[in-house]
Amino acid sequence: MSERIKEEMLDEDAVVLTISNKIATIQLNNPAARNALSTGVMASIQEILDRLHDSKDAHVVILEAVGPVFCSGHNLKEIVGIDREAAMLALFEQCSNMMQSIVNLPKPVIAKVNGMATAAGTQLVASCDLAFASSTSKFATPGVNLGLFCSTPMVALSRNVSPKHAMEMLLGGEFADAEQAARIGLINHAVAEEDLDRTVQDFATRIASKSPLTVRTGKAAFYNQLTMPLDDAYAYTSRVMSENMQTLDAQEGINAFLEKRDPKWRGE
Amino acid sequence: MSERIKEEMLDEDAVVLTISNKIATIQLNNPAARNALSTGVMASIQEILDRLHDSKDAHVVILEAVGPVFCSGHNLKEIVGIDREAAMLALFEQCSNMMQSIVNLPKPVIAKVNGMATAAGTQLVASCDLAFASSTSKFATPGVNLGLFCSTPMVALSRNVSPKHAMEMLLGGEFADAEQAARIGLINHAVAEEDLDRTVQDFATRIASKSPLTVRTGKAAFYNQLTMPLDDAYAYTSRVMSENMQTLDAQEGINAFLEKRDPKWRGE
Amino acid sequence: MSERIKEEMLDEDAVVLTISNKIATIQLNNPAARNALSTGVMASIQEILDRLHDSKDAHVVILEAVGPVFCSGHNLKEIVGIDREAAMLALFEQCSNMMQSIVNLPKPVIAKVNGMATAAGTQLVASCDLAFASSTSKFATPGVNLGLFCSTPMVALSRNVSPKHAMEMLLGGEFADAEQAARIGLINHAVAEEDLDRTVQDFATRIASKSPLTVRTGKAAFYNQLTMPLDDAYAYTSRVMSENMQTLDAQEGINAFLEKRDPKWRGE
Repeated sequence: MSERIKEEMLDEDAVVLTISNKIATIQLNNPAARNALSTGVMASIQEILDRLHDSKDAHVVILEAVGPVFCSGHNLKEIVGIDREAAMLALFEQCSNMMQSIVNLPKPVIAKVNGMATAAGTQLVASCDLAFASSTSKFATPGVNLGLFCSTPMVALSRNVSPKHAMEMLLGGEFADAEQAARIGLINHAVAEEDLDRTVQDFATRIASKSPLTVRTGKAAFYNQLTMPLDDAYAYTSRVMSENMQTLDAQEGINAFLEKRDPKWRGE
Repeated sequence: MSERIKEEMLDEDAVVLTISNKIATIQLNNPAARNALSTGVMASIQEILDRLHDSKDAHVVILEAVGPVFCSGHNLKEIVGIDREAAMLALFEQCSNMMQSIVNLPKPVIAKVNGMATAAGTQLVASCDLAFASSTSKFATPGVNLGLFCSTPMVALSRNVSPKHAMEMLLGGEFADAEQAARIGLINHAVAEEDLDRTVQDFATRIASKSPLTVRTGKAAFYNQLTMPLDDAYAYTSRVMSENMQTLDAQEGINAFLEKRDPKWRGE
Repeated sequence: MSERIKEEMLDEDAVVLTISNKIATIQLNNPAARNALSTGVMASIQEILDRLHDSKDAHVVILEAVGPVFCSGHNLKEIVGIDREAAMLALFEQCSNMMQSIVNLPKPVIAKVNGMATAAGTQLVASCDLAFASSTSKFATPGVNLGLFCSTPMVALSRNVSPKHAMEMLLGGEFADAEQAARIGLINHAVAEEDLDRTVQDFATRIASKSPLTVRTGKAAFYNQLTMPLDDAYAYTSRVMSENMQTLDAQEGINAFLEKRDPKWRGE
């Protein structure tokens, strides 16, 4: 069986979605292809994100991967085969749309990294709302080594870490270890490999126990206000909070707190 | 004596202003109510900030609290009693105006935290120019636990810490300890509880010894330029520095420096 | 020989440019004047930056200094001698233009700091793309002590570090040591003094080995996208990457990677 055919067979299950206890897990499952973001894989992820967008079954999403490479970024063999500039632009736009779909998803997305993340793979991590990694994980934006600067990955990277730290990764093209990634703000925490499952599961379970209406209100407001001038941001979020208070979940939540009991969300 | 009456009595002295050696201290002094930001307390703080705005008596402000809770955020009992959406919006606008009054005050404000700060309490800390905390202090934006996302607090929080760190606090709703708060940039430093008084007093005294004209010029310029494009920021601050140089305090300060003596500010 | 004449003599070689192995080194070489940014020194740096802008001889720039003071900022004796406001404004604009020329230079600039950097000296470091410092180096924006707030330095400072950390330096006017500077993001790393040469040389050599076309594409795109809304940033960088892929260097780089050989850049 040729490698080509093997890859195609694997592609069918290259991205696997499972949902359990209101937690959706998107698993990159093509370790033979280093979980590269081929157009097929990106289309699968996009389809899953679109499906999860309004789903009542999942309140939070975990993005994880099988194998020693979390995600190696774009499929270079596919890229070199594209000769028209319009098709090339379409590829990067497809990827950029997928990354923005994570930001715009009305559910928190947690990256669970146990391995190497490079180029658009690091961008995936940076695009998630939260990220936890095993202490042996590594992150790089190495496009500069190939003559193709990581210009789209740097959009997500530079919105997480300070300019000097971003430039060190972008211009140097070397790996940052998990501890450095945590220090600069690319990920939340680096934990021992044996603690990664539990750490992510605990955080996802915690989010899944909140009011989904409240969480999606807050996530959307977070990114909306982030680039506003201070007075606009306050005018906007004052309205958001005031509307949030009109919901039954907020009234139930505050009453439950004052009555020292667990709240019962409507689950909307 | 009913709890209601006790609270009202305490409310009178719920916020105490003292001024000494050009240092104003705003003290939240209602530990029985966990220093909650009731409308009355917010009005008192607002009134004090308005009074300090043009006062020549204070060059710097310390914001501190009595009791184990620095500030617990909004008064939830008061919030659940508001049934009209317009009144609710007015409440959040009152709070947002107060927070912006700290940013717009022509004097630096230093948060001195020795205890727990939650929701709008964490927002208060994030809104100050500087913040020091005892190492046992803790910070949270736990609105998500009550169905009411900390949407206005996140405006100040997300302008201090990176998105992943902000999201961890906002979505998780758990406490960050003082060391973590310092690491992510929410506060300047966590210090031993017995060193907190001296640390804050020393920094306040240092600021009080500067030219108030220079300090208010710099503070205003800082927030004005922060969100400008680079070239606009430089054009603006070049004018600010040039005008600053025309003041007698700058000429006195530079001459004193060159003559190796202490400057004598005009105190304007 | 009077001090005045000595200073003028030194001024001629106050800034020295050397180029070797595609690495340009700009050396501040006036330790007797604490490497102050007199108008003459700023003009020399500007002239060098302008010359390097389109030069094919250098792919990366190191900014270093002779003596215990990396750069002490503006020449105060010169400043107090300026009596017209228009001339004062011109001075700060000259400085701001020089700082922006570093950002706009199509080659990465690495600050190599072994000593004290104050006021516009700290701004120089903050304006570079990367910065490494010996562990004994120190950084301050002490204008507040002289009645002249570091308003232009804070533009660069506040685009590197969080507001609280910037305010601590600007309002306190005290030194931050190299470790603190690294922790808050003002510099990339603090290293032992004996390792500074090698650390900077290694990073510069690494950048010099990349495609200069790719590096300048990436550096320009980095600063362009930094302040755009997320969707605009992605639309823009998708075009940048698509155009980058049309270059011979990207095609050579990716093919070399797939063929497991070293790339041969065209050096444009």
